[in-house]
Amino acid sequence: MAASSALAPPGFPTELHAGNRERLVAALRGKLSDSARPFRGLALLQGGEEQNRHCTDHLELFRQESYFAYLFGVREPGFYGAIDIASGQSILFAPRLPADYAVWMGEIKPLSYFKDRYKVDVVFYVDEIAQVLQDKFSEHGKPLLFLLYGKSSDSGNYSKPATFEGIEKFDTDLSTLHPIITECRVVKSDTEIALMQYANDVSSEAHIEVMRQVKPGMKEYQLESIFLHHAYMYGACRHCSYTCICATGENSSVLHYGHTAAPNDRTLNDGDMALMDMGAEYSFYGSDITCSYPINGKFNSNQRIVYNAVLKAHNAVISHMQPGVKWIDMHKLAEKTILESLEKENIIHGDIGAMMARRLGAVFMPHGLGHLLGIDTHDPGGYPEVRYGLE
Amino acid sequence: MAASSALAPPGFPTELHAGNRERLVAALRGKLSDSARPFRGLALLQGGEEQNRHCTDHLELFRQESYFAYLFGVREPGFYGAIDIASGQSILFAPRLPADYAVWMGEIKPLSYFKDRYKVDVVFYVDEIAQVLQDKFSEHGKPLLFLLYGKSSDSGNYSKPATFEGIEKFDTDLSTLHPIITECRVVKSDTEIALMQYANDVSSEAHIEVMRQVKPGMKEYQLESIFLHHAYMYGACRHCSYTCICATGENSSVLHYGHTAAPNDRTLNDGDMALMDMGAEYSFYGSDITCSYPINGKFNSNQRIVYNAVLKAHNAVISHMQPGVKWIDMHKLAEKTILESLEKENIIHGDIGAMMARRLGAVFMPHGLGHLLGIDTHDPGGYPEVRYGLE
Repeated sequence: MAASSALAPPGFPTELHAGNRERLVAALRGKLSDSARPFRGLALLQGGEEQNRHCTDHLELFRQESYFAYLFGVREPGFYGAIDIASGQSILFAPRLPADYAVWMGEIKPLSYFKDRYKVDVVFYVDEIAQVLQDKFSEHGKPLLFLLYGKSSDSGNYSKPATFEGIEKFDTDLSTLHPIITECRVVKSDTEIALMQYANDVSSEAHIEVMRQVKPGMKEYQLESIFLHHAYMYGACRHCSYTCICATGENSSVLHYGHTAAPNDRTLNDGDMALMDMGAEYSFYGSDITCSYPINGKFNSNQRIVYNAVLKAHNAVISHMQPGVKWIDMHKLAEKTILESLEKENIIHGDIGAMMARRLGAVFMPHGLGHLLGIDTHDPGGYPEVRYGLE
Repeated sequence: MAASSALAPPGFPTELHAGNRERLVAALRGKLSDSARPFRGLALLQGGEEQNRHCTDHLELFRQESYFAYLFGVREPGFYGAIDIASGQSILFAPRLPADYAVWMGEIKPLSYFKDRYKVDVVFYVDEIAQVLQDKFSEHGKPLLFLLYGKSSDSGNYSKPATFEGIEKFDTDLSTLHPIITECRVVKSDTEIALMQYANDVSSEAHIEVMRQVKPGMKEYQLESIFLHHAYMYGACRHCSYTCICATGENSSVLHYGHTAAPNDRTLNDGDMALMDMGAEYSFYGSDITCSYPINGKFNSNQRIVYNAVLKAHNAVISHMQPGVKWIDMHKLAEKTILESLEKENIIHGDIGAMMARRLGAVFMPHGLGHLLGIDTHDPGGYPEVRYGLE
């Protein structure tokens, strides 16, 4: 029997995205002021489009593009959004839906619905973009559009700048917006933190439910199913932040296990360790929780050694981190603590300093110490130019 | 407490896709014979690629492109597959993975793994395609490749023909393969039917579990969550055939409710009808089950009238359909039966023949009578040129 949760879904945060827009406008004005440029132009972003699976009419469940979600919170596909830098005015452009949408997909909502829900100043149709931007937001000469274009330091991929019919009549700036909005996303507002806390609370409960039900003979995917169900049924989380990693036995050593080529399909054996890496998403904001435990509820001595080595590193970092401390030093502290534990248990032998110099720690912890979290699981803005400064 | 299922997942059907390839080769040879062309060339298909979400490193859970799944059953992304028409030999091309794949994504499987799992004659790497096809399969002059290119009659979108470095050295045929493989997919083998039966059995049980748990005060998405969980936990179905439609109250009149703009978020009221349209997928083969019932377990008189009108149409079609009967006549029978029931209950008034001539039935049944089902929910090959011949 699944435990019911006392958590109440907070619902759509009506003011959050307006606050994110305000933050962006302030940052953009600051940037323009610094270079003695006028407060001219609009930031323009294009939301995501619903995707068919290959040539079929199968529609994948849509999840909004993350930068667009940050600024507008729009869950529907096919939108554009703009923010006028001088006035701070925000504009949404909604797709004009065909009449038979109402029969197949649901009520065609009036523009006022989107204005109310997303707290923007005005809403037009997508096919009106060029006209509206030219007529209403171009008092100071040729219209200037700041478009989102820049490299994701996690994927190496570039965001796709907005495009629409008639864009050639506008001046466009592809370099200013991306670093500024990315930096805005780094520091979370109280509302953002509350959403992330909620997603984390739901995920914690779902992990606990998995722990309650796990036993030898089950399949890994059943643990995934329990997590997904608990997060959706009791936490209203339709999406997860990433594909569930339900690794047991030697699969636990594969960092991103669980995808289609390694699909959580092993049978659990008595004596296995489980590494569960799963996180739910609520209203675009995510969570990312990994925990590791023996599926029969009792560590054997080897499992206890490794678990305690990681726990000690975890605690060491938490007790040392504070404003002013460097991330890379915390990464090194974690590696060093793990090496020390393994050396003490006679699993490795030698001089810890020499091991650190040779990066032996990376054998046991091949990933970074952590990453930013938010609308993306690897939220942008936190990646140093050289990865952890260690290589 | 969720009921556990007596259904045992059938596992991967090792011979199915080899059988599908044989069927295609026979059909291609028949086609070539009919036009007195030699058995020269290979059918070449490109499998689907894993997709990042926009610019991020978020990977969507991959599901294979359907035509490629039909012929090769490959669950992994990044493959190509070819079938030599003269010899019937099948060749898979696997992506060459970087060494650090093993750390992040899992064991790098040897080519022999794919040969065994997918029962093909030989496996090479994707970067060897041009060389292999030229060296080993081009004895009879300039190599000829039959590529998959054609319009989906459901989506109106075109399948994307395979492309690879060096394809310009080959002759290509874009028109022959698509209609033939599409027709092959129409008639299902016993193994295909068994998989579809399994997916349907799992879905039936999951629907029943939803019926058991539904009650006023719940949210629609909780019904979705129960279905998804039951299908995955007890049926090993990781994917559904389509986004769950959990419509209650007036949402039940929206055919494809449940997507992100209408996301199963209504609260259930006592007295509501539910329309649940959900189907699980197993090993690429899907199901599609809709059922409709009062959430408090008891029809009121209006609900009973509508339910019985649909049931009567359903039964009329089943009792009349047999080989030789036209699909369009069954569609008309359904419409007519519904109109007769509504007329008898004084909901509509007039001459049924005149209503039929004016297509009044389409007001109450705006969709078709049904569709083919298989690897796609709307499996290809069954769509007449003019939709139902009725408009």
